[in-house]
Amino acid sequence: MSKNKKFVEAITSMDEDFAQWYTDIVKKAEMVDYSSVKGCMIIRPYGYAIWENIQKDLDGRFKATGHENVYMPMFIPESLLQKEKDHVEGFAPEVAWVTHGGNEKLAERLCVRPTSETLFCEHFAKIVQSYNDLPKLYNQWCSVVRWEKTTRPFLRSTEFLWQEGHTVHATPEEAEEETIRMLNVYAAHCEETLAIPVIKGKKTDKEKFAGARSTYTIESLMHDGKALQSGTSHNFGDNFAKAFDIQYTDKNGKLQYVHETSWGMSTRIIGAIIMVHGDDRGLVLPPKIAPTQVVIVPIAQHKEGVLECANEIKNRISKVARVKLDDSDKMPGWKFNEYEMKGIPVRVEIGPKDIEQNQAILVRRDTSEKIQVSLDEIDSRITELLVDIQNSMLEKARVHRDSKTYFATTMEELKDIGSNKPGFIKAMWCGKTECEEKIKEDAGLSSRCMPFEQEHVADTCVCCGEKAEQMVYWGKAY
Amino acid sequence: MSKNKKFVEAITSMDEDFAQWYTDIVKKAEMVDYSSVKGCMIIRPYGYAIWENIQKDLDGRFKATGHENVYMPMFIPESLLQKEKDHVEGFAPEVAWVTHGGNEKLAERLCVRPTSETLFCEHFAKIVQSYNDLPKLYNQWCSVVRWEKTTRPFLRSTEFLWQEGHTVHATPEEAEEETIRMLNVYAAHCEETLAIPVIKGKKTDKEKFAGARSTYTIESLMHDGKALQSGTSHNFGDNFAKAFDIQYTDKNGKLQYVHETSWGMSTRIIGAIIMVHGDDRGLVLPPKIAPTQVVIVPIAQHKEGVLECANEIKNRISKVARVKLDDSDKMPGWKFNEYEMKGIPVRVEIGPKDIEQNQAILVRRDTSEKIQVSLDEIDSRITELLVDIQNSMLEKARVHRDSKTYFATTMEELKDIGSNKPGFIKAMWCGKTECEEKIKEDAGLSSRCMPFEQEHVADTCVCCGEKAEQMVYWGKAY
Repeated sequence: MSKNKKFVEAITSMDEDFAQWYTDIVKKAEMVDYSSVKGCMIIRPYGYAIWENIQKDLDGRFKATGHENVYMPMFIPESLLQKEKDHVEGFAPEVAWVTHGGNEKLAERLCVRPTSETLFCEHFAKIVQSYNDLPKLYNQWCSVVRWEKTTRPFLRSTEFLWQEGHTVHATPEEAEEETIRMLNVYAAHCEETLAIPVIKGKKTDKEKFAGARSTYTIESLMHDGKALQSGTSHNFGDNFAKAFDIQYTDKNGKLQYVHETSWGMSTRIIGAIIMVHGDDRGLVLPPKIAPTQVVIVPIAQHKEGVLECANEIKNRISKVARVKLDDSDKMPGWKFNEYEMKGIPVRVEIGPKDIEQNQAILVRRDTSEKIQVSLDEIDSRITELLVDIQNSMLEKARVHRDSKTYFATTMEELKDIGSNKPGFIKAMWCGKTECEEKIKEDAGLSSRCMPFEQEHVADTCVCCGEKAEQMVYWGKAY
Repeated sequence: MSKNKKFVEAITSMDEDFAQWYTDIVKKAEMVDYSSVKGCMIIRPYGYAIWENIQKDLDGRFKATGHENVYMPMFIPESLLQKEKDHVEGFAPEVAWVTHGGNEKLAERLCVRPTSETLFCEHFAKIVQSYNDLPKLYNQWCSVVRWEKTTRPFLRSTEFLWQEGHTVHATPEEAEEETIRMLNVYAAHCEETLAIPVIKGKKTDKEKFAGARSTYTIESLMHDGKALQSGTSHNFGDNFAKAFDIQYTDKNGKLQYVHETSWGMSTRIIGAIIMVHGDDRGLVLPPKIAPTQVVIVPIAQHKEGVLECANEIKNRISKVARVKLDDSDKMPGWKFNEYEMKGIPVRVEIGPKDIEQNQAILVRRDTSEKIQVSLDEIDSRITELLVDIQNSMLEKARVHRDSKTYFATTMEELKDIGSNKPGFIKAMWCGKTECEEKIKEDAGLSSRCMPFEQEHVADTCVCCGEKAEQMVYWGKAY
């Protein structure tokens, strides 16, 4: 362990300063770098490879549910942004404005898209005429810009990468079905691929998307007890359809407004992966999105046969996992630290003594457990181990989340838990925005969602004491 | 054929008006749509699916040659853009400027990236210290913006999608090797995947990239005899390294400047696919990038057993190709036209009589040839056919290109061919920019490249009559 010491000291412990721990990890694991563009991040190869794996998984899920990818312009003319009243109010204060093209002043300012509802609506109005044209199930992968005052890599940056789905349907029922379907796709991606358990629910009116009838969300809990909104799905009803005049002729020849949805997930989720799974030695990546799943570190690699054997193992493992062999002349201890920092799920140690005994040591990143395996079955054992790590990371995160989920039935409890026990707090709510605002003001808690899985915690609103039907998850959020 | 008539008349014939033919195809094959953002295009699902296949192929080639993907900010502060003199001169006149963020005026204007050399250089200066850090082989997929006065879908638009590779090396030799390697990757992608033959060569000083020591290019010839620059690869030497102070400590402890390259290919190449392979019935897609490779059109589908058989065939073909069955209630003739317009390489016709005889008809999009095949071997025959179509499309394009490639030894010949026979013209050049400019002015031809495969057409420059070493391809270009 002493060899590891130097490196371990190089990152701040999460209990000491969680924010600094986070910053240390994104830098030392070489996920991002800062640039001279204020609030914008450079996503380095290791961070981007994680994003590519997320994209691949999500994109597969979108296509399996019938969605097609498209690309809209990155600019929105000011007049187009202004067409839907709530939408422009929500976004105008935080957009970047292009005023000049080359050496000429533009007749109309263009904003860099903060989100693309207006562009999709304009397009839908052109291509949707009849019920035969419906539904349109579109998605786009792109970057968006929102002018932020304080930024943090992945969690909040002026520019970030995301996908935004935009769909048009004939009926309100189909739009609602789609909104929920995509929320479920996000939840499945988080739980099955990222090993992040989520709470599915509906946002209150105060927290919903600018221009939406209803917004659904998946909320996850970070290691420090703060919540992170990890994906949202919006049902617009015919709100935008009326503002943009998107109508179709139904089977009876009657003009009808369409019903729309949109849904998005962003590079922000990489922040969640770090803060749900990471530890004081660095990143811990779920095998399914780890760019490298297995790293082989040869011990005493100058000795005869070691590198040969390591290479042979590498070839076998490469058939079942993304594997890397580090045969550089750095010390094994340095390599252990480096790949722990990078969160590689399994390390294989192989030295002369192991070879003599026809074995290798597998070390799990998530539990540090060491497992002796025979070289004959190393590939099948690794296959099993990766599945096990994936599952136990989800389970561990679930246990952690549940251990930080509390109930409150009075404002005093709410305030007490809010100040002393960071986590999710379940409490009843009457439905009034005043109460929501008072809870924010007095306890510093925002409503995260009205979960689909309701529990009847009490009869009355935690704030005003009036009759309450809804249980809400409250928390401090990123 | 009469059933096809109506649709065929809907697009302009290429001989009548090539530009209108092109516009008709991109609209009718539903590849792009226009938006209210001047000069920016909407890439619709069919166009985007082609781009995704191009991306997948190119990205695989980049990774196989050791490159990693990253993401840089989309904004470049004005002072950063200005660091390399030639570069800013080349790009400043055509960038979009962001002057306001939210409601505040920015202290320094930001341009939307027209290309990202400056951002990469700033990053490289931070992360490259020692020879151990070299090379860095990076690529990014993104959109860029160049303020254009006249635009055409794919060929020239204010915003377009591309990839830009940026690499740093220890020595000039390695940088040159990389520059040529990536040009070869582009050429292989064009020929093997897009079935587009290309001429590889070097740009003249006049035509090279702003800030590059040398620019290499692949040039392809469109059906109308105009050339299209299809991909470029630049060697910067230590030009940018000096402007951005990117130095490393070599093995002897001495500070050295790095040597850099960049290379890019864009959605423009989709324009080349259209203009190299298309015909008066629409798009013709090479199988390797066709979103749908085989479409099954049932004949008399209301008759017993037809749809059942069509579905069964579909399942079998789906194991060897991207296949679609159109069992909508539209007429077969309408479907034939629609999928010819979309350039789907193979159509399968299957009706009651075919089923009786245990056969189906395969129709090649590229040659219109009809082939009777037994249902027992339909999947293997389709596999062979797709390979054959891919190969013969390349061959056909090569023959066409060669038939439009001419020689000129005098200015009169050059002018005559330039005005009357659109195509590539091979002619000797002395190396002086004056001659290049005179040829542009008098014959309306630009230098496309100095090809790697030189031929000794004559001893003297076609323009000034002085001694010439270089043969140049001249042409009119998109």
